[in-house]
Amino acid sequence: MIETPSLVDQYCHGVLRTELGLGTFEAHLARTEGPPAAGTTLFDTQTGFAVRRWCPPLLGLEPHCTPARYLARRRELGVLESGRRLLRGSGITTYLVDTGLPGDLTGPGEMASTGAAGAHEIVRLELLAEQVADTSGTVECFLANLAESVHGAAEDAVAFTSVAGVRHGLALAPEPPGPGEVRGAAGRWLAGRRVGGALTDPVLLRHLLWIAVASGLPLQLHAGLGEPGQRIDRTDPVLLTDFVRATAGLGTDLVLLHGYPYQRHAAHLAGVFPHVYADLGAALVRTGARSAAVLAETLELAPFGKLLFSSGAQGLPELHVIGASLFREAIARVLGGWVAEGAWSPADAQRVAALIAAGNARRVYGLE
Amino acid sequence: MIETPSLVDQYCHGVLRTELGLGTFEAHLARTEGPPAAGTTLFDTQTGFAVRRWCPPLLGLEPHCTPARYLARRRELGVLESGRRLLRGSGITTYLVDTGLPGDLTGPGEMASTGAAGAHEIVRLELLAEQVADTSGTVECFLANLAESVHGAAEDAVAFTSVAGVRHGLALAPEPPGPGEVRGAAGRWLAGRRVGGALTDPVLLRHLLWIAVASGLPLQLHAGLGEPGQRIDRTDPVLLTDFVRATAGLGTDLVLLHGYPYQRHAAHLAGVFPHVYADLGAALVRTGARSAAVLAETLELAPFGKLLFSSGAQGLPELHVIGASLFREAIARVLGGWVAEGAWSPADAQRVAALIAAGNARRVYGLE
Amino acid sequence: MIETPSLVDQYCHGVLRTELGLGTFEAHLARTEGPPAAGTTLFDTQTGFAVRRWCPPLLGLEPHCTPARYLARRRELGVLESGRRLLRGSGITTYLVDTGLPGDLTGPGEMASTGAAGAHEIVRLELLAEQVADTSGTVECFLANLAESVHGAAEDAVAFTSVAGVRHGLALAPEPPGPGEVRGAAGRWLAGRRVGGALTDPVLLRHLLWIAVASGLPLQLHAGLGEPGQRIDRTDPVLLTDFVRATAGLGTDLVLLHGYPYQRHAAHLAGVFPHVYADLGAALVRTGARSAAVLAETLELAPFGKLLFSSGAQGLPELHVIGASLFREAIARVLGGWVAEGAWSPADAQRVAALIAAGNARRVYGLE
Repeated sequence: MIETPSLVDQYCHGVLRTELGLGTFEAHLARTEGPPAAGTTLFDTQTGFAVRRWCPPLLGLEPHCTPARYLARRRELGVLESGRRLLRGSGITTYLVDTGLPGDLTGPGEMASTGAAGAHEIVRLELLAEQVADTSGTVECFLANLAESVHGAAEDAVAFTSVAGVRHGLALAPEPPGPGEVRGAAGRWLAGRRVGGALTDPVLLRHLLWIAVASGLPLQLHAGLGEPGQRIDRTDPVLLTDFVRATAGLGTDLVLLHGYPYQRHAAHLAGVFPHVYADLGAALVRTGARSAAVLAETLELAPFGKLLFSSGAQGLPELHVIGASLFREAIARVLGGWVAEGAWSPADAQRVAALIAAGNARRVYGLE
Repeated sequence: MIETPSLVDQYCHGVLRTELGLGTFEAHLARTEGPPAAGTTLFDTQTGFAVRRWCPPLLGLEPHCTPARYLARRRELGVLESGRRLLRGSGITTYLVDTGLPGDLTGPGEMASTGAAGAHEIVRLELLAEQVADTSGTVECFLANLAESVHGAAEDAVAFTSVAGVRHGLALAPEPPGPGEVRGAAGRWLAGRRVGGALTDPVLLRHLLWIAVASGLPLQLHAGLGEPGQRIDRTDPVLLTDFVRATAGLGTDLVLLHGYPYQRHAAHLAGVFPHVYADLGAALVRTGARSAAVLAETLELAPFGKLLFSSGAQGLPELHVIGASLFREAIARVLGGWVAEGAWSPADAQRVAALIAAGNARRVYGLE
Repeated sequence: MIETPSLVDQYCHGVLRTELGLGTFEAHLARTEGPPAAGTTLFDTQTGFAVRRWCPPLLGLEPHCTPARYLARRRELGVLESGRRLLRGSGITTYLVDTGLPGDLTGPGEMASTGAAGAHEIVRLELLAEQVADTSGTVECFLANLAESVHGAAEDAVAFTSVAGVRHGLALAPEPPGPGEVRGAAGRWLAGRRVGGALTDPVLLRHLLWIAVASGLPLQLHAGLGEPGQRIDRTDPVLLTDFVRATAGLGTDLVLLHGYPYQRHAAHLAGVFPHVYADLGAALVRTGARSAAVLAETLELAPFGKLLFSSGAQGLPELHVIGASLFREAIARVLGGWVAEGAWSPADAQRVAALIAAGNARRVYGLE
């Protein structure tokens, strides 16, 4: 029986502070373009079924109870108490929280106290740049403040994260842009921008990545499933190969987030390049009962010291719960199956499970 | 035990009316460029093995009997009687029949009477356009007749289907072509065309798609494995993303046919866009003993209200039989496995099986 | 119980003649860009675990013993004796050896005597061209010697192999380059080249492929995982489709090596084109405990007469051992599972296992 008593969720977001009805809860189960088709519901997905399996018992209900019954119980307990029960029931011992999403989400401190766990901040580069742009008058001022902000953030955060791939596609030119190119792009962006405007310029996105690489903090790159309506072939992690080669040997680790449905490609890069790591993340929460199969595919090429658990959860504490529960069940089933076949020794299986659950993240992010 | 008493085959073709010998039968088991290599036979494929497993018992033979013995029995019964036994033994209760293939194949009426089932027509857009071109003298006449024909066909058919992706690749410009562009393309095509000449012009293919979208009838788009010698990366359904976004909210559903080996990409689109559906189709008939594994991959991202059974069968009633048999076995094994693990409730599993087998198709195509 | 007493390793390399320490042994377990990350080891991979499972018993140790203990025993026996025990314990009955790698590796003759097996040579086209270039003074001389060398090699070798895809990507123009084009490219290459310089010019790579096609000997093309730092989307075998079509009907067979993680694409080509075959190769050695799953994916579309076992092993006899052991176990599990489900008959399963293990290779390469 393979166990994972420590669990570092190496990439997640906070949870909502507001009470949710059936419809608003359902809307957080998937990322779609528009409401569900007539006659269908987002509860009829792997994510919805996984929530109905794992969460009702934490609130004192039977597994697989109806969504309406579950939501009624959730409201009865209140958002704070149900959140407390769910996060504490997840088994996650440390949360690394990307604070760069809009909306009223709890930060690392509140995740720690609600979940009775450790928590650290991950800083989202693009939001940082947008905040700097909001308060910088000139191009020179913007670029100077940007570099200072990234280096300042690196003192408290455990990692940076970038959604450059989701905003532009991962086929970015691999080398750092030149100073003149950066100045020109910054001038055009600032001139055309209103307060709060999103950073999508590829030159500035690359510039940001290279400032982050220079900080030495691990850099998490979104890949695979990103924005719902985006062409996912443009976020295939294989497109990062040249950027990965360009950053080799600089002392900064790259963590490929999600990857799915290109998990074999992400695992390949983690196998080839010493400074590259792969994440399980959204793949578990999105594929539910198929988590063990997806994990097994990732374990084909990824060295066992290069794979990291995360939930990728966002908004609903239920997603942290299912990320953790599906992971624990999947790793026990996959590695336990290899032990039963004689392919792996029990001691190796237990050791590898602990690495993926927590040990690799502790080493990469320098946690205690 | 999960059961699917109703089975709507949402995409198939009719069957041949002529007696077949060993070689002519074998040629229908796969779509290849040229005859099998010396020393090999198309019976030695997943399709061939599935036919030998499921069909002999319907004709009174042992499963896995030799091809020669099976063909002898088939000829003994005659093509009509063996077709009757096979289709009635398939368990399919409604056939949606694409009538746009060349060759002497049975139509929906004959499929219904032979199979003791319901049947409806799917109209293939490119054939319709070619037939209109055969009888239209001028560009203006062609374009007017084309629009009229599509709208006329929409009155009796349950869906349109397009092989634009197979003819040109799916990376078509997503927006409708302008009137001048269409007129120019039609003029060039009609001028260079002989009677029966195939439509491959990308502007006219797009024009046709948009006329069909305007009709409101569900539009089935071929993706994945298409013409045997074609580069399959050009039929990856992810290439349709921009067209899908352009057609969102217009009230017309898109059904991605086949998808395999890109079934995860098709499932992703069905998950993101309310008006997109994914089909199992050829994946089952082509992969035989692996059908459960392929179905399971599709069930990672596809919402359970967005996935539709079909056989994709063509020419041989044996292919309708194995499409249906493999589907029933695969869905029972995959969903039954999840019930056994506690991941899904038995009631949910039975409900989802019925949706994929028939309920989703009934809703999408408005079948009683 | 499915058995494969004959095993033709249709693509491998020789083994090292020097004693190896822990670090030098580890470096041969994977192909990476740089040494393993701090805190990780290449023994913590599927390949490392498979070596620890299958090889210690052949040297008189327990399975899963530590790397240090295994290496100590290996040195105790000496490289010759341990190589003899490993190769003879692999169960491989015939080795087809690519002699085109640099380094002090055993050739076919030594593989045969050490392994008590048959052995034949595979000639690597690019090395042949580089050797011809080293000794040819003029363009005319080079081109004449090249054609002569290829045809001379075809008399003794059982196959040619090309790494054009690994050097340039597989999206090569499909048709043979014209004589003027070839002369120009040869002139430029020879002028800029030092002795030993690698051939990477796409015109000359294509010219070589077409000389080889003209020889009639089977031509093995590297696809899928190639050079560690290369973008693997550029070695997707689907990119070969047009070259494959251009070579159809010429009487020369093409064998797609490795393929993984695009094994479904390689299997598709083997299914569509009579002269195309797919290889299991590196997929087994790289994915270890997942070999059965990867084999099963390949068996979806590949006709059973078109799939060939190989180990792809290089340098360490341990890799020949795990290639063979993983294959035997995977084929028994996958085909045995289908027999247990009733999907395949026992006789068919045994026959197909023998084809993939040895029969197909014997037929394609004309072995005894």
